[in-house]
Amino acid sequence: MNQTASLTSTRRPRLLLVGAAGTIGRAVAAELSPRYEVITAGRTSGDIVIDMGEEASIRAGLARAGTLDAIVSTAGNVHFGPLAEMTPAQWQVGLQSKLMGQVTLAMIGAGHLRDGGSITLSAGSLAEQPVRGGSSASLVNGALESFVRAAAIELPRGLRINVVSPSVLQESMPDYGPYFRGYEAVPAARVALAYGRSVEGAQTGQVYKVL
Amino acid sequence: MNQTASLTSTRRPRLLLVGAAGTIGRAVAAELSPRYEVITAGRTSGDIVIDMGEEASIRAGLARAGTLDAIVSTAGNVHFGPLAEMTPAQWQVGLQSKLMGQVTLAMIGAGHLRDGGSITLSAGSLAEQPVRGGSSASLVNGALESFVRAAAIELPRGLRINVVSPSVLQESMPDYGPYFRGYEAVPAARVALAYGRSVEGAQTGQVYKVL
Ligand SMILES: NC(=O)c1ccc[n+]([C@@H]2O[C@H](COP(=O)([O-])OP(=O)(O)OC[C@H]3O[C@@H](n4cnc5c(N)ncnc54)[C@H](OP(=O)(O)O)[C@@H]3O)[C@@H](O)[C@H]2O)c1
Ligand SMILES: NC(=O)c1ccc[n+]([C@@H]2O[C@H](COP(=O)([O-])OP(=O)(O)OC[C@H]3O[C@@H](n4cnc5c(N)ncnc54)[C@H](OP(=O)(O)O)[C@@H]3O)[C@@H](O)[C@H]2O)c1
Repeated sequence: MNQTASLTSTRRPRLLLVGAAGTIGRAVAAELSPRYEVITAGRTSGDIVIDMGEEASIRAGLARAGTLDAIVSTAGNVHFGPLAEMTPAQWQVGLQSKLMGQVTLAMIGAGHLRDGGSITLSAGSLAEQPVRGGSSASLVNGALESFVRAAAIELPRGLRINVVSPSVLQESMPDYGPYFRGYEAVPAARVALAYGRSVEGAQTGQVYKVL
Repeated sequence: MNQTASLTSTRRPRLLLVGAAGTIGRAVAAELSPRYEVITAGRTSGDIVIDMGEEASIRAGLARAGTLDAIVSTAGNVHFGPLAEMTPAQWQVGLQSKLMGQVTLAMIGAGHLRDGGSITLSAGSLAEQPVRGGSSASLVNGALESFVRAAAIELPRGLRINVVSPSVLQESMPDYGPYFRGYEAVPAARVALAYGRSVEGAQTGQVYKVL
């Protein structure tokens, strides 16, 4: 039995996509479904239900997904609001869901990946270019970027991990526009290419910025 | 009454230094005590006892410190250990103490600062240059660097916030050497200059790297 994810394999590689129903998730599915069996997951939709804020839910979802060649997360929540009004509970949303949810998905998910498999997480350009009301998102995105650099040097069996850090999406401007005046929004299809590069490329510990 | 921290004031400006008894803290005290009344704090030592892992303790310590011109943190714990063996409780150490402890100190501390006062936090070069066993430190340092960039644009009354991100200290090599083989260690006195630059300079939202 071939335990490595090979380019020349006739077996269709299996990719778990958490957040598949979202703006970025749908574009990633469109980019990768021609070459991957995409198993979709989300909090309320998809082949598998996973709540990124709950370790038990992540563990159960991964167990259902079986052996994988790639894990992609385009999910995770953060609270937006004025810095001075942020409560401990509001900081915890981002820490538990987008940050530790994705860290936990990566750590438990590593055990479900074939040798040479990949993990791709989602951060965002607020790590470097802040906006009013985005302090928690900045904090979480910066944490994720540094986490993948660190995790990359300790993952076993040739497993890879990267993060995609996009600017605001054109498709999200109707919702997020007021926060991102003057930002050059990027199309979801361009963002999806960065996820494809992480999954189908060979690098690890990278932050793929889409600006 | 003069509410601004002025270079020409004859009043001796007041600086709260949390972690004053530590390797970096002692060097910061040496650098700034000629020009600042340094109020020292630590978990087990100093003029004021503050536990960075406990919001109530931070709040009480700041209330005791009174009105300040500058707050500097050189405190906060992180768990070091192999990535694959990190438990949720071990991740929480860094998130609660070094990350949210410093965020909380900054947020509550802002209310105790005179107009134009400054906040200086501590991260570390693991944000960009990871070592084995340092994934939590990398994550936390990256989060802190992005947090100060974001907080800087929302702080009121000309308050400033920066973070110092040093490489391993020469003085710490007896303890941390095995993690940092091949790293150029930096002397504590050079690191202390970066804190001085943050406190006595005029920039905000900066990551002062000392490499
Ligand atoms: N959109 C942007 O402009 C932008 C820019 C930079 C970074 N990002 C980041 O990229 C990620 C995805 O953004 P997006 O705009 O595509 O999000 P989105 O459209 O809101 O979609 C998020 C998807 O993730 C799922 N989800 C939400 N919370 C979840 C949870 N706790 N557990 C599991 N799944 C959950 C939802 O699934 P169900 O539908 O099944 O509930 C939803 O389909 C976020 O982390 C966001 O911060 C977005
Ligand atoms: N040393 C390095 O090479 C290096 C390099 C890069 C970054 N850093 C970072 O810089 C910071 C300071 O490092 P350091 O080496 O100077 O540390 P250190 O020598 O271990 O000293 C830390 C000091 O902070 C206090 N402290 C510890 N836990 C605390 C808590 N929960 N609440 C309040 N105070 C607490 C201690 O006070 P008491 O003595 O009163 O208990 C101690 O004096 C850390 O965040 C570290 O990660 C260090």
